[in-house]
Amino acid sequence: MTAASMFKPDSRLDLVLDRVVDAPVDLLWEAWTTPAHLKHWFVPKPWTITHCEVDLRLGGKFHFVMRSPEGQEFPNTGCFLDIVPKQRLVWTDALLPGYRPSENPFFTAVLTFEPVKSGTRYIATAIHRDEAGRKKHEEMGFHSGWGTVLDQLVVYTKTMR
Amino acid sequence: MTAASMFKPDSRLDLVLDRVVDAPVDLLWEAWTTPAHLKHWFVPKPWTITHCEVDLRLGGKFHFVMRSPEGQEFPNTGCFLDIVPKQRLVWTDALLPGYRPSENPFFTAVLTFEPVKSGTRYIATAIHRDEAGRKKHEEMGFHSGWGTVLDQLVVYTKTMR
Repeated sequence: MTAASMFKPDSRLDLVLDRVVDAPVDLLWEAWTTPAHLKHWFVPKPWTITHCEVDLRLGGKFHFVMRSPEGQEFPNTGCFLDIVPKQRLVWTDALLPGYRPSENPFFTAVLTFEPVKSGTRYIATAIHRDEAGRKKHEEMGFHSGWGTVLDQLVVYTKTMR
Repeated sequence: MTAASMFKPDSRLDLVLDRVVDAPVDLLWEAWTTPAHLKHWFVPKPWTITHCEVDLRLGGKFHFVMRSPEGQEFPNTGCFLDIVPKQRLVWTDALLPGYRPSENPFFTAVLTFEPVKSGTRYIATAIHRDEAGRKKHEEMGFHSGWGTVLDQLVVYTKTMR
């Protein structure tokens, strides 16, 4: 199995957002890996992130708490699986920090960043266990949700320098 | 969280085999990461390994089929999470190759190898989701099973050179 085939999305199981955005790779990477930045763009407004932790190493903690406009909080905890600065970031909620299998595995996220003439080609892939997982994520609004936060991220990068 | 605390076993959830063995680190590493070697020692005899695949990279496949003396086959598929040659090998069945969450997550294995005067300090830690997982693994014979295959591994290394 080559690296390309290992991560080739399966349309039955996976969801993909693939866009070219007007932002440089280095700012996208920084915004993705810094809690103080993540809070500004990582959930579709008016949702907010009330808490975020990033321990950027293999098996390290990725934790965030999303808060609905009604005030309900949704904590998420997972860990990082692969970290290639400014190229690839992989994390999952199937394993807790230190690689402990989690109670409620849902998906693994693979983010890739590639510099192109007009900015960055950004590909976010959500990898699910089964078709039901993919459908659930789709119904939760993967495409509009991840698209909206990418828009927010690009706008946010303009304020970073 | 430091690296040490991230992997500090939790006695309620984890199982640990910690022994100093009369075998050099390089042979233990080679025997652990090569299918042709794994087949010789990886299950307590008279069980056998009928098939084994090792794709030694992050997210790469670790697959083996155990066969009972009665001829029943038990396939296992997981992926590698951390690979520090001759020092640390981490794999899990909670994620399939390419990091897809699996149907039946059971445990993550952390193997560490440390050269000492008389050979190698070998620590195998099995990390479970919950107490029930730890108990099940204990009842399946973790301590005698992993101890037996370590004995087999040490004997096998004598034939490798």
